[in-house]
Amino acid sequence: MDKIIVNFTPTGMIPTKKDTPFVPVSPEEIIREVRQAWELGISMVHVHARNSEDEKPTYRKEVYAEIIAGIRQFAPELVICASTSGRNFNTLEARSDVLSLQGDLKPDMGSLTLSSLNFNRTTSVNEPSMIVSLAEVMKENGIRPELEAFDLGMVNYCNYLIKKGAVVAPYYVNLILGNIACAQGDLLHIGCMLKDIPEDSIFSLGAVGTDQFKMNSLGITMGWGVRVGLEDNFWYDENRTKLATNMELLNRIHKIISANEKEVMSSKELRQRLNLDPGFGKYGVAGSNV
Amino acid sequence: MDKIIVNFTPTGMIPTKKDTPFVPVSPEEIIREVRQAWELGISMVHVHARNSEDEKPTYRKEVYAEIIAGIRQFAPELVICASTSGRNFNTLEARSDVLSLQGDLKPDMGSLTLSSLNFNRTTSVNEPSMIVSLAEVMKENGIRPELEAFDLGMVNYCNYLIKKGAVVAPYYVNLILGNIACAQGDLLHIGCMLKDIPEDSIFSLGAVGTDQFKMNSLGITMGWGVRVGLEDNFWYDENRTKLATNMELLNRIHKIISANEKEVMSSKELRQRLNLDPGFGKYGVAGSNV
Repeated sequence: MDKIIVNFTPTGMIPTKKDTPFVPVSPEEIIREVRQAWELGISMVHVHARNSEDEKPTYRKEVYAEIIAGIRQFAPELVICASTSGRNFNTLEARSDVLSLQGDLKPDMGSLTLSSLNFNRTTSVNEPSMIVSLAEVMKENGIRPELEAFDLGMVNYCNYLIKKGAVVAPYYVNLILGNIACAQGDLLHIGCMLKDIPEDSIFSLGAVGTDQFKMNSLGITMGWGVRVGLEDNFWYDENRTKLATNMELLNRIHKIISANEKEVMSSKELRQRLNLDPGFGKYGVAGSNV
Repeated sequence: MDKIIVNFTPTGMIPTKKDTPFVPVSPEEIIREVRQAWELGISMVHVHARNSEDEKPTYRKEVYAEIIAGIRQFAPELVICASTSGRNFNTLEARSDVLSLQGDLKPDMGSLTLSSLNFNRTTSVNEPSMIVSLAEVMKENGIRPELEAFDLGMVNYCNYLIKKGAVVAPYYVNLILGNIACAQGDLLHIGCMLKDIPEDSIFSLGAVGTDQFKMNSLGITMGWGVRVGLEDNFWYDENRTKLATNMELLNRIHKIISANEKEVMSSKELRQRLNLDPGFGKYGVAGSNV
């Protein structure tokens, strides 16, 4: 039976309570939401930290530490990926702050966007030297990159990083489609990206905006994985009439997975596939070190 | 017989005399080089201005005016595209300076890069609002955009600009392959870009680096166009043993065109295809207004 990676993205950089009351922002809210998701069934969570006061993204490792500690209380096995997005603070010091967390607070993975790109209204600047440096910090700290590919060129750059030795197997890639200035939710686009994706990759399909649902369903149909949550899309329906909750999005994914006679990949299996050794002794993780 | 667009790119932002003694930098050098190219046979020229003193790129319209006036003395029909690159000066005022040239000094076209992107070592930032503003300034001034597409998403953004009315038909697109963080010189990549390219487009194939030759040859084989010159590649051979001159690159293109039993599209025909009305009365252009 195919095991589907469910990569849960509850928060992101963008949505605020004004956009949707359902987005979890404070560490407590994020932890509570991840707990519900964990009980429902997810393989991994992609976490963005925010300031509780003004809801703005923060790079501060203290906030990430609070979230990670909170999640590991109830889900020590859950694979946690921390964002290193530089959209609001583009220095290596800020972006790698979370990667310096140690021991039980260390994230398993860190996001690594593979080029600069335009979103609807803004540019996400990721200079080549920044990408290489972030990859190297992750490698030094035993944190696996979550490789974020929005277009063909990012897959090419991923292969360059591998050739250079900055990223090592096994690989986890998010294919994020539907951004206005990137590859679209088009089977030829996706096929081209996958043709060039490194061997030894496992990957999930997501999309910015209302294509999220279709791309998630495709990721399940094909037996791969999904990146799902309010980070990329906060509407339940394509016509944008109903705001979604994270649980509604996840429940729908679960229905599609079981209707397709597949199942969610467990965090344990994902850890094995990605060669992750958690080492969260304090939380009693059933890892190789326990 | 197929008419091949030959878009000549003699200078660019990057190569200096230290990289290759053959790159034309001062207005006089650029004008001299374009004259030779014109005598050999080109359809259009893509011009970057530089400071004569330090070879650094400049946005100043006075330098562009000097180059454009010089070229129109001997080649009034030649389609001239001015760069609006923001890699070194990313304000609308600077980038659109050349677009304010009037009358006989007005460029026929202006470059319009369709997203932000990474090169080998640097990021080229083109915020969405900047792209839309540049397109609007061009539209107001009767300057046609040279649409620069490096990856799938840039073609998508091009279609968005068309839908929005910021860019109008007929369209001219450069497909620039082989940049490390963009689409590669791969037939599937190119096929995907062309599948989505707007109807009413004519286009040229180019590449950053040594793939330029192969992509140019492909552009000829298929009956489209080529973007060729030291801007994108200053080597003659794939093994990078011999520095090229612009004329050597152009001569090779001409040989391939004639061996393929095709011919270079004249500037006059290109003007008709792009609905360009030159209006360079002083230089006696054989345009619709003469």
